[in-house]
Formats: sequence, C-alpha cells, structure tokens
Amino acid sequence: PGRGRRAGSRRVYGTLEDLLGGDIFSDFFRTFFGDFERAAGRRPGRRAEQELEVTLADAYTGAVKPYDIIGPDGRAHRVEVRIPPGVRDGDVVRVTVPGLGDLSFRAKVRPDPQFERKGDDLYVEVPVKLTTCILGGEVEVPTSTGKLILKIPPGTQNGQVFRLRGQGMPRPENPSQRGDLYARVRVVLPTRLTDRQRALFEELARLETAETYAGAR
Amino acid sequence: PGRGRRAGSRRVYGTLEDLLGGDIFSDFFRTFFGDFERAAGRRPGRRAEQELEVTLADAYTGAVKPYDIIGPDGRAHRVEVRIPPGVRDGDVVRVTVPGLGDLSFRAKVRPDPQFERKGDDLYVEVPVKLTTCILGGEVEVPTSTGKLILKIPPGTQNGQVFRLRGQGMPRPENPSQRGDLYARVRVVLPTRLTDRQRALFEELARLETAETYAGAR
Repeated sequence: PGRGRRAGSRRVYGTLEDLLGGDIFSDFFRTFFGDFERAAGRRPGRRAEQELEVTLADAYTGAVKPYDIIGPDGRAHRVEVRIPPGVRDGDVVRVTVPGLGDLSFRAKVRPDPQFERKGDDLYVEVPVKLTTCILGGEVEVPTSTGKLILKIPPGTQNGQVFRLRGQGMPRPENPSQRGDLYARVRVVLPTRLTDRQRALFEELARLETAETYAGAR
Repeated sequence: PGRGRRAGSRRVYGTLEDLLGGDIFSDFFRTFFGDFERAAGRRPGRRAEQELEVTLADAYTGAVKPYDIIGPDGRAHRVEVRIPPGVRDGDVVRVTVPGLGDLSFRAKVRPDPQFERKGDDLYVEVPVKLTTCILGGEVEVPTSTGKLILKIPPGTQNGQVFRLRGQGMPRPENPSQRGDLYARVRVVLPTRLTDRQRALFEELARLETAETYAGAR
C-alpha cells in the first residue's frame, strides 16, 4: 500500500517498512553502495543530491522530514531533514549523519492547488459575490496559516488585485520578514433569479450608458 | 536601425542591408564557412538548425519568410522559407538552396498577447458586460483571422468557457482540419453608478438568498 507514495523513480519519504518492502535498488541506494562517485562525476562540480518533496505549507512553517536510508553496514538509518521556513524550490539542505557523512537534499516544493508562489510572494484567487463587488463588503481570504478578512471597496472590478503586505512566504534569509499575499477578485454571478431579481437586472440593462462601464477593460 | 530585429545572438530575418551591416560572424555564417560539421557534431545525430521566429498569425495562415545568407562564394543569397499553415513551435522546415545544399530552420512560434495556444487549440479571454452575462446577449470573439459573434446564454457565469469548434489552428498534417477556439468569459462590472442604479443593486443585495448563488463556486 505504501507504493503509491513514490515521486518519479525516487522514494521521497515513507515508513521504514514501506522502504524495505519497496524499491531497495533505487538511485539513492545504488549511489550509497559504491556508485556515489560515479554519480557525482556525471556532472562535474556537482554532488549527488536527493530530491525531497515538501508542500507549500511545509515550506511556510518549516518542517522536519524523515528520510530512510540503508548504510554501508546494511542497516536502515532514519535521517531527519530539517526544512527551513521559506525554503524555495531547488534549495539544497545538508544533513551530516554519523558514519555516513554529508547528505544533500534538494527541496522540491510541490505546486499548491490554491496558492501560486512567485519568489516570496503568494497569489490567491478570492471568489466575491456580485453585490459585494458593486456595493462593497468583506470577504475571507485564505492564507497559508488561516484566514484573513479583506475589505472590498464599493465598485471593485472583477480581477482586481489586493496586496496583503507581509502575508506571503517567510524569507529564508530572515524568516521574521515575509513576502506579500496578492488576492485576486473573481466575481461570482447569481445562478438563479426570481422574477423580481430579473426585473431589476432588466432595469439595470436599460439604464446602461457608456458611462456605466467607463474605463473598464 | 535594423539591429533591433535580433533574437538572442541570432539574426532571424531582415533586409540584406541590415545583414551585411550587422553581425556577419553570427553562428550561422561561421557554420557555413567550415564549422558546419563541428557544429553538427556537438550533438550527435543533429544538424545545425537556425531559429526562425514566426507570429501566431503567420503560423495560422502559413507564410513565406525571407532569410539572407552569405554563401561560400562570398555573395549574399536570399532564401525563402516556406512556413506551413499550423506550424508548431519547434517544427523544422527544410529548404534546398542550389549551390548551398539543405538548410534547416526551426520554427519558433512567438507567444501571442491575445491567444494562448495548446496543441492546435486556441484560448482567448472575452470581456462580457455584467448585464449580458445575466440576461444573455451577443459578444464578439476575436479569432486568428477576424471576429465571430458568440451567443451568451442568460445566466452565464464569470469564467465560463465556450468552445468554438474548428476555429483553432490548422492541423499541419491536414490544414483543412482545425483545432478549436475556447472563449473564456471575463465579466466586466459597472464602474460608475447613478443613484437609481445603486438603488437597484441595493435591492438585489437585499433579495439575495442561498438560492441566488446556488452551485456557484
């Protein structure tokens, strides 16, 4: 059952049981049992690195990820890889393991279904009801750690972007500083109208002039 | 003035005058004056190819692009490169030039500001006024060659996608067949309201129930 948790040809993390029952001839093990130098030699100046998948939430808070390896003694060792807050895709984390030397892990930050990351900034789409956009109001904006209330001013256009300063990813150099969160308004329109509601929209349509949409693109 | 028309370190196309006044030691010329085999040998099994930039409109209709080269005789030759309709990014077009042999050009289809291409399908965003989405109506959809009228049914949601069958890119294998055009509705909201219009939206807000937005996400 643990076999579903593989990324490409490399096991990323799992229980030791999964690991021993699984693919013990993965790239990583072959590397350890003598091919290390050859592997590193394929790209001059580069060391063999293992990919370690982390979620955006892990990258936000930082995390400790277990990683199991078989040492030259033939025994399994659990390595704890410390992912620093704000880790960026491709960052390399090193771990010194007594008896095994230095291991390098390259963080692969998985794309998030909700947040898009650009540098240390995050982008999120926020559904907002039509009448809230037109008349103003408040909406909840998801953040990496919870929710925030965002004030929507009257006359907010579909697609408008609000910057929530300091609500982005921690900066790895200084995790007390953070990037920004950009919230993009996606207007949600009514799906079902009563006769009265339809009549109101019909009157709005009759009252429209060039001025009504002035400046909108 | 012709120097602006360069893509990376390679001249793509321009007048002969531009060319002779410009970078006559480009990769392409060096290749021709004796380095051809070495250049091709860098990647076994591959021939030296020149990049040729085309617009999406060129790719749609097909085009003939001039390309000027200096032959071993020291004279300039204008080559006409025939871009087939529907050409895809990375497709290779070959031209036989008497006295110079076969030249290979790799089409680089420039991203279009309006249309996104995926395979032979095109995607375009269509701004639609609020009242047209709610009550239905018609909008113009840009296509690669002009405009089409799209009927918007009443109750169209923001972000809804309409498929316009056969309005995409020609299929290079058979240019009489074409991919589809996907038109994505982007609702445009009023920017300025009269007191009466605002009063109508306020009544709409008061009349809203869970049913009003049922099923909307």
